[in-house]
Amino acid sequence: MSRPGVITCKAAVAWGPGEALVVEEVAVDPPMPEEIRVKVVCTSLCRSDVTQWESKAQPALFPRIFGHEASGIVESVGDGVTEYEVGDHVLTVFVGECMHCKHCVSGKSNMCQKLGLERKGVMHTDQKTRFSIKGRPVYHYCAVSSFSEYTVVHSGCAVKISPASPMDRICLLSCGVAAGIGAAWKVADISKGSTVAIFGLGTVGLSVAQAAKLRGASQIIGVDTNSDKYEKAKAFGVTKVINPGDCDEPVQQVIKRLTDGGADYSFECVGDTGVVSSALQSCCDGWGLTVTLGVPKVKPEVSAHYALLLSGRTLKGSLFGGWKPKSDLPSLVDKYLNKEIQVDGLVTHDLPFSSINEAFNLMKDGKCLRCVIHINK
Amino acid sequence: MSRPGVITCKAAVAWGPGEALVVEEVAVDPPMPEEIRVKVVCTSLCRSDVTQWESKAQPALFPRIFGHEASGIVESVGDGVTEYEVGDHVLTVFVGECMHCKHCVSGKSNMCQKLGLERKGVMHTDQKTRFSIKGRPVYHYCAVSSFSEYTVVHSGCAVKISPASPMDRICLLSCGVAAGIGAAWKVADISKGSTVAIFGLGTVGLSVAQAAKLRGASQIIGVDTNSDKYEKAKAFGVTKVINPGDCDEPVQQVIKRLTDGGADYSFECVGDTGVVSSALQSCCDGWGLTVTLGVPKVKPEVSAHYALLLSGRTLKGSLFGGWKPKSDLPSLVDKYLNKEIQVDGLVTHDLPFSSINEAFNLMKDGKCLRCVIHINK
Repeated sequence: MSRPGVITCKAAVAWGPGEALVVEEVAVDPPMPEEIRVKVVCTSLCRSDVTQWESKAQPALFPRIFGHEASGIVESVGDGVTEYEVGDHVLTVFVGECMHCKHCVSGKSNMCQKLGLERKGVMHTDQKTRFSIKGRPVYHYCAVSSFSEYTVVHSGCAVKISPASPMDRICLLSCGVAAGIGAAWKVADISKGSTVAIFGLGTVGLSVAQAAKLRGASQIIGVDTNSDKYEKAKAFGVTKVINPGDCDEPVQQVIKRLTDGGADYSFECVGDTGVVSSALQSCCDGWGLTVTLGVPKVKPEVSAHYALLLSGRTLKGSLFGGWKPKSDLPSLVDKYLNKEIQVDGLVTHDLPFSSINEAFNLMKDGKCLRCVIHINK
Repeated sequence: MSRPGVITCKAAVAWGPGEALVVEEVAVDPPMPEEIRVKVVCTSLCRSDVTQWESKAQPALFPRIFGHEASGIVESVGDGVTEYEVGDHVLTVFVGECMHCKHCVSGKSNMCQKLGLERKGVMHTDQKTRFSIKGRPVYHYCAVSSFSEYTVVHSGCAVKISPASPMDRICLLSCGVAAGIGAAWKVADISKGSTVAIFGLGTVGLSVAQAAKLRGASQIIGVDTNSDKYEKAKAFGVTKVINPGDCDEPVQQVIKRLTDGGADYSFECVGDTGVVSSALQSCCDGWGLTVTLGVPKVKPEVSAHYALLLSGRTLKGSLFGGWKPKSDLPSLVDKYLNKEIQVDGLVTHDLPFSSINEAFNLMKDGKCLRCVIHINK
């Protein structure tokens, strides 16, 4: 078999923080050893793509190709990669699983030491990019960069899926939906009959809601300042919605009253560290658990009064819902295929690649849940 | 049986924040229904007595009688109290157990809704004091107030113990030692072979250490700025001591290096919210757990970078080590009597009641672990 060469294809390139993406031609290098090159089929837009694109914290990492929630088809494999064959259907994942490090072999962590969250815009293996425009490097995002017709990912940052999986829906399991379900099932381990408060009714929050409903939670309280989200929230299991703007008292007081002293579990799905404190105050003494999932847009410090902890609350974080991608994602895909979990209802927009900036605007304006971008349309 | 009357006895009264205690005569009312009056035998001084005594936050709660770690003998019982007889040996407890509320009947909380931490200096039952000096109310502390020859406590805020228990040592199980052991066993549930970092090597921290050792922890790292504490720390199981003042880098970096990426568990036993962040940074990604036990002297807000949580850490608080006093304390007492846990080594000073201010000074100056005050000496 001939070695794969450079591919020239279209990608949506961000030239600076917050600048509209430009769909233009990029060169995509062939996969290095341990890597695969993937023809992206669909990619949904996650709030963290927008947060990172807006951020002025890493100006040196532009031009950059964002996108990390994606489905695709293996186009070529690097030397030594035996796990994939050309034509395999895959989901990309922003936290990889090398299967060998201390964390991967532990039963209790998805923080792979080799393929953890990549923050420098390069590949894990050689700290270089696989994208370029006229020789100028174009940076990656989370070692995925799915806003491109082709991308290169580490073989440990992809998960093989059944070709029967609909590419335009299953991509949501690559980040947001899995994160929410995992937070509810794996991190919080919600028990039947319990009470749940969810701050933020976007894709992640609604995925927590459906997972809580499937576990038999008795009350699922959703908090969001955007009332456009309430109807969909109810369809995903939220039993009561609260708009903090309509309350005469702090929302945590309302939740405490509704739940006889505080919810058993609360989830921060907004990406606002200030909300973490409200979420902690909304759960009960003794065994209340707050799970924080959001990536904050501003203030990175979470703070809370010590007495909330001393009285028995737990604050826990989770990335990708605590799932190990290769070990756990296939069973989530199966649950979707068996109609045990909902994904389709979270897609509010299907857009062609050329409309990618519209997806960014919809997300910024709170006018969508997930926009799926069909790369080849 | 004749109804008990008012007792006039000696108590150490604090007349204002930080003012030296004055041992003087107080009137102690008879126990009301559900209450018992206890002849205090021994009381040890806990750091939180000193913290609260120094605090200017509640000036209206003076004059006040501090003390909460105590052993004593039931002198009289209030109407309807059938659980105790005059002469029973008891430990007092600052968190009660009513046995009936939602939290008491749950298997997972010691935050009794009826007899929780009392912050207003009065009795739970009628929001009044049982102490007075010439008719002027003298406030309680944590519904215990053991710096007195006699005190009145709710029957749910005491635990009957075997008369074989040495009163002058067992009193430590009434708060500090139980808090540390519970944090390690019940809250963190330390597993064999794990690594542990303990911030603060006072009575609570050393109790965490001995509990970690008994669980078979492979490394127990103790952090304290006071090198006088190191020798005792090693006797209680600490395998390595670190003085942050001697380090060229933040102590969490040292701990990360010693433990290949961070400890499995870390404990904040100082009572400094700033230390909570160091403790969280000292434990590992994926499954690192920080338990905070200390009552802060100043800044009540705990804060930490969100990424510490998102990468899989858990921050948990605990009061009294999560133990339900009536349900759990007797078995801890048994373990002490069977020499399965150490208490005696934590007592650095035995003092007569008249020297109580010396105990306060020793604690403030970091010159003691526990001072036991023998009330009738």
